Formats: sequence, C-alpha cells, structure tokens
Amino acid sequence: MELAYQKRSQEELLRELTEVRERYEMLKAKGMQLNMARGKPGREQLDLVSDILRVLTEPEDCVSDGVDARNYGELSGLPAAKRLFADILGCRPEECFIGGSASLQLMYDTISKAFTHGLLHSGQPWCRLARVKWLCPAPGYDRHFRITQSFGCEMITVPMTPTGPDMDVVEALVRDPAVKGIWCVPKYSNPDGIIYSNETVRRLASLKPAAPDFALMWDNAYCIHEFDGDFEPFADILTLCREAGNPDMVYEFASTSKITFPGAGISVMATSVDNLHHMEKLTGVQIISYDKVNQLRHVKYLQNREHTLALMRKHAAIIRPKFRCVLRHLEDQIAPLELASWQKPKGGYFVSVNTLPGLAKRTLALCEEAGVTMTAAGATFPYGVDPTDSNIRIAPTLPPVAELEQAMEVFCVCLRLAALEKLVQE
Amino acid sequence: MELAYQKRSQEELLRELTEVRERYEMLKAKGMQLNMARGKPGREQLDLVSDILRVLTEPEDCVSDGVDARNYGELSGLPAAKRLFADILGCRPEECFIGGSASLQLMYDTISKAFTHGLLHSGQPWCRLARVKWLCPAPGYDRHFRITQSFGCEMITVPMTPTGPDMDVVEALVRDPAVKGIWCVPKYSNPDGIIYSNETVRRLASLKPAAPDFALMWDNAYCIHEFDGDFEPFADILTLCREAGNPDMVYEFASTSKITFPGAGISVMATSVDNLHHMEKLTGVQIISYDKVNQLRHVKYLQNREHTLALMRKHAAIIRPKFRCVLRHLEDQIAPLELASWQKPKGGYFVSVNTLPGLAKRTLALCEEAGVTMTAAGATFPYGVDPTDSNIRIAPTLPPVAELEQAMEVFCVCLRLAALEKLVQE
Repeated sequence: MELAYQKRSQEELLRELTEVRERYEMLKAKGMQLNMARGKPGREQLDLVSDILRVLTEPEDCVSDGVDARNYGELSGLPAAKRLFADILGCRPEECFIGGSASLQLMYDTISKAFTHGLLHSGQPWCRLARVKWLCPAPGYDRHFRITQSFGCEMITVPMTPTGPDMDVVEALVRDPAVKGIWCVPKYSNPDGIIYSNETVRRLASLKPAAPDFALMWDNAYCIHEFDGDFEPFADILTLCREAGNPDMVYEFASTSKITFPGAGISVMATSVDNLHHMEKLTGVQIISYDKVNQLRHVKYLQNREHTLALMRKHAAIIRPKFRCVLRHLEDQIAPLELASWQKPKGGYFVSVNTLPGLAKRTLALCEEAGVTMTAAGATFPYGVDPTDSNIRIAPTLPPVAELEQAMEVFCVCLRLAALEKLVQE
Repeated sequence: MELAYQKRSQEELLRELTEVRERYEMLKAKGMQLNMARGKPGREQLDLVSDILRVLTEPEDCVSDGVDARNYGELSGLPAAKRLFADILGCRPEECFIGGSASLQLMYDTISKAFTHGLLHSGQPWCRLARVKWLCPAPGYDRHFRITQSFGCEMITVPMTPTGPDMDVVEALVRDPAVKGIWCVPKYSNPDGIIYSNETVRRLASLKPAAPDFALMWDNAYCIHEFDGDFEPFADILTLCREAGNPDMVYEFASTSKITFPGAGISVMATSVDNLHHMEKLTGVQIISYDKVNQLRHVKYLQNREHTLALMRKHAAIIRPKFRCVLRHLEDQIAPLELASWQKPKGGYFVSVNTLPGLAKRTLALCEEAGVTMTAAGATFPYGVDPTDSNIRIAPTLPPVAELEQAMEVFCVCLRLAALEKLVQE
C-alpha cells in the first residue's frame, strides 16, 4: 500500500485497482453533493463579518470628509476609502480608485478601455491592432485568462516557478511590441499559493517592454490573506515601478471580497496619478460613482490596516483547519504513491495539485461522478488547455470540515483510480 | 415692464437695460454659491429614505429564495430584485438583469460590448465597422450623448416634439444600416419632461431598422417619478417590441437612484431573454455578481410597486414646491417678456427652457459670474453644441426652496440681461 505505484508490478497494480475501484463504488453509492470548485468563503466566515451590516444606520453616519455618501458624486471614491486601501497596500491614497463589489470588473474595464480607447501611453485603441499578445503565468487564475481570451488576445503561457513567473521567459517575451501585458497574482498566487520572491517582483517592476503601454496587471487578491502563520509584508509595487522608471506600467487590484462579503464588498485599482487621470476621463463617461455608502460601511468596519489584519486572523482560524485537512489527505494518501506534488501554501484560497501527466481530467470526471464538484481540469491554463493534463485546483473554504473530509477522501480515491486505470495494462 | 422686449422701442430697451444691469450687479454683490447643475436629490430626500440602512442587520436577513446574498454568485441578480423591477416596469422577472448603483454603467457596458464583441444579432463587433451612426433626440441627456461620442459614433440629432422624437425623421434615418441605435427617455424626458405619446412609443417599437442589431436604448429613468398629480401608467416596451416582431431590439434601463440613494442604489437592464443570455455570456467574464446585499436591502425596503409608488409620493411632496418655484419665476418674470418657452412637466427632474436664439450661453455665463451654477449651455445636444444656442436645463431638486428662490431670481435677471444686451443697439 505504501509503495509508489510506478514501482509496483502489474500484478500488484491489478490487485490495487480492484480494491480502489470497490472503494470508489462504495463512495459513489453514498450520493454525496460536495463542492470544492471555487474560492468561496464559507457560512462561518460570512457570519464572522456580519456586524458590518450595522455600522451605518443613521443619516448622520453617512457623511465622510464632508461628502454625503448617499448622494451622487466622487467618481474615484470616498477619500476615507482611498486612505484605507492605501494603508493596506502601502501606496498613496491619491493612487487609489475605489470600485464596486468586484475587482474583476476593474480589471476587465481597464482592458476593455485599452481596446476601445487606449491606455495612457497607447498610440491607438488596441482594437485597431492586428494582434495583441498577453503573458499568462500558468497555472493561473481562470477568470484572468477568460478576460484576455474574450478580447481576442493571443495568450502566451509563461511557466510558474516556486518564486513566481519564469522571469527569463518574461524578459525575453516583452521585447515583442505586440505583447501588451501580463497577469500576476504576486502573493499566494492562484492556484499555487506561491509568494513571488523579492527578486521576481524587482525584475517585474524593472521590465523594459517594447510596448509603451504594457500593463503589469497586479492582482493582489490575497495581500493580507494568511491562514497559517504571521502576516507576510510585501513591497509597494507602485513605488518599485516608479523607482525603476516605469511609473505608469502597473495596475494593482485588491478587494474586500474575502475580508467582508464576497457578494457585497468594495474593490480598488491602485495606479499612478497620471494613469488614474486618464482612466477617470474614460470612467466618468461610464459611471457617476460606485456605491459610496458601502465604501463608508467598509471604512467604519475595517478602520485601518492593523484592525483589518486582526480580522484576517479570525478568518484564518476558520479556514486553517480546512487547508490542513486537504494537506493531510494528500500527505497520507497520495504522497507515498508518488502520484502528485503540491505546494503547502500559508495563505490564499487554494491548494494546487500537479498529478503525473494525463491524470487531471480523468480524476475530476471520477470526482464529478461521485458527487464532488471541483474546478474544471485545464481551467488554470490559457484557453482551458493544460498541456500535460495534470493541474488540479482544490478550493477547500466553502464546505464545513466534516464535508471536506469526505470530499478529500473521494478526491484521493479518484486520483488513485485514474492512475491505476492508466498503469494497469488490462 | 410687462411688454415683450421685442415690441419695445430702443429707448425703452435702453432704460430697461440700465435697470436690469443694476439689479444684476446687486445680486452679484451678494456672493452667492448656488447650484442647479445636476438632477441631484436634496438632503431631505436622502433623509426620507435612510430607513433603508436598517432593514438588513442580521445574518439570517441575508438569505433570499435560498441564496445567501453575502456570498458570490447569481450574476444576473437576486430573483427577488428581478421580481421587484419587473413589477415596477411591467416586464417579466426573467427579462431583468440587476446591476450596481448606476444604470448608466449598464448602458455604457451594453454599448461597449457591442463595440468589442457585438450584440446578439451583430455580424461583427462594431469596432470593426468603418462608421457607426446613432440617433440622438435633442434636447436630451448629456451623459447619453457622451457615451456614444466616447465610442466615436456619428451622432445625428433628431428634433424633439411635444410627443417625443420626431418619428418621421427617425423612421427615415433607420433605413441606413450604419444607424445602430437611438437614445430614448420615454417618460419625463431629460430635459423637457415630455411623456412620449402612445403613438410615438408604438412607432418606436415597430421600427424596421436596416441594421439587424439596432438598439432601442430605453432609459426609463423617471418611470415612477411624478412630482405633481397621479402616477401615469406606461406600456411595457418589451411587450410592444415583441408584438411588433422586434423582440431583441430594446434595452430598457431603470434604477433606484432617485427612489432611494443616488450614490448607493441598484439598477436594472430589462431586455429579451435571448438578449440577456447573450449579454450574460459577456458579462460573466467581467463580474461575478453586482452587490446582492444591496439588492436585498432594496427588496426589503421597497417591497413592491405599490409600496414604491407610496414612497414616490413622499419624494413628490418634497420636490413639488421646488418645481413650482421655478415655474412661478418663469411665468412671472419671463413669460410676459416673451424671451423663452418651456414645458410644465409633472414628473422627472428638470425644467427645460428654450430662450430666443443665441441667449443660452450668455445667460449661463452671467449666472456663473453671479454664483449660480447651471448645466453648461449646449450640454443637452450631441457634441455639446446647441445649434440655436437656446436650450437651458434647470435642475431644481438639490437646493432648499429658499436658495432656489434666490437662484431663480438670478437666472431670470441673467436671461433678461442677455436678451437686452442683444436687443439694444449700443
């Protein structure tokens, strides 16, 4: 049982296959309905922060820096909300544009406006260009890739390393003027949970792209999202880019989706003041302002960086056991069989499993059949195609631990079964 | 004093000019700071609806139709929010997509996606077309015109009549396949306050545009916004278009910006189920969902059409005196002089004044100098150019009545002065 599958004889494998298949059929017969598909906070986390519903109840609560948050105005957001995000991200309040419930929308709109109107240093809207290429460190975030795919970008996969995107590859590719940007999740990258090394961050900030309007899309989605151990400080990417002579290259994004409510938070785009002026000219045509009452609600509830970090430690206490459960199952049931490898992240929302080649799709199909829904195989790669069919993203935050135990048991059995089906020469 | 300026002798006009100029200098010396620029609700209206801050305070309040509004999901909005808007607009819940605080954003995004991806019946994205023409009934809403201008549309002015856009002109223009859409504010049109006649609405719904993806942009911003007299029922434009064989031609928009909080309301786009499916495929790349907690807050606060209409009667009681103040000043001080004409709207947010040709810019410059800010002259026409320099939009809802009295006094003096400067041959 403890020997790696690839070291076993056909006879041993066949015996194992029979056993695992029986186990699988037994689990399937339970008719479970479990979901580990998305990085969705669980009920307990939502309840943890529901006091935010009560921080703003009277008309007089609604005034902030002399602005009545209830009325029209303040396109770029309440000054107090800018100060809060600047405190968390380490940038300046005047570099912040406050959005609605989804930082994804701010990212999409930045790229959409690049296509229809152009960014600050674009000679023309990107829709007029014959081709737009985009760098996609992979495995990465499926929703990022869907944005650039939706606009017809030619997406180029950049390998991920344990210190972030392979920078030799990135530096070579940005010499092509058709390469207009790159997706980055610098802290607890989705899905690997890697923190980009200081060296990688420095090299990204110092890129010398041929395109004058190259966009470093810096999705700091998990900037304060440790679930295990102390808060890991991070450098302000806006400062690093400015110091490297690239003040207008970076667009940083963050949100409270996994701090307060996923469906009702606030978001931020932090970028140079010159970029913001350009974007505000375009965004002022689209919207009068995002929801300022909700901005104020968040300011009153989160207060500042320290107070927000304290809240994140309470989230951590809720989700840490879930990640430990995932890692324990993998360690106990998969590691000895040498069927896959994975990072052991200390923050973020995922565990990324890399199976032996050609097992991901089959494993997830078996999971689905047994009532366990996971992120689709391939989703973490551009165009949804994982070249080695091996990456599987586990999102353990939504189910309660008891359900997660079951789901992970199913997952491990499915992975073993998928491997055995391949190894046994029937 | 009571004789129309144009019937007076030069001598009389000169005497009047001296008097009015003195009066103007006196008013200017007061150093007022008054604003009638935008259709912005006043403080009293915001306080009226601030109970909405308290309708949702506990975790268990946050579940609606089995959906936890706090978490991710439900791209097109909470079912209960769809039912609320369907009740108000007379359409079906499944035809509603619920947005954030700004219906403007839904309009912009619809046109933006038409340019980058195409609408349901577009052969290709509009950005690939040599030219896109757009019909702009004018005077109209400046923010509408800015959207189509921003995307480089060739905007064609359609004259407004007391029953809505001149339909003979519209019907002729839509025979051009480059004409891709029209802006409409069917009830209490911005700025004239006109309600489109049944005949106009019927002809719009029955248009036979050459472009298969022609968009009837139906901004029902003031659908239940009577401030004087009873609620005026309106026909469901989606049904009318469907019955006329144009099921996918119309995109209707509305919001709670002038029902609850301008800066923190919810919005809706109502369109055919086929259009919604198409738009959801595109919007699903941009956002996971708009703020569902705020949607639920609105559902609990507004409840249904009847309850919402009762609230609108309270808004009416606040703003009616403001409109009456504007109309009284115009009747008393401008009508006898025959310097301008205007509608007497019973709903909406504006009074639209049409001066004798060539007086609008000068009148507003004089107002500005005396400390009264108004919507810029020309703003109600495509490209900000009013061909006869005569339309002025008065937005009386923000200032308290006492301030409005002063502002209208200034306005009337400025209009008289502008006219006299022109008529007197100095």
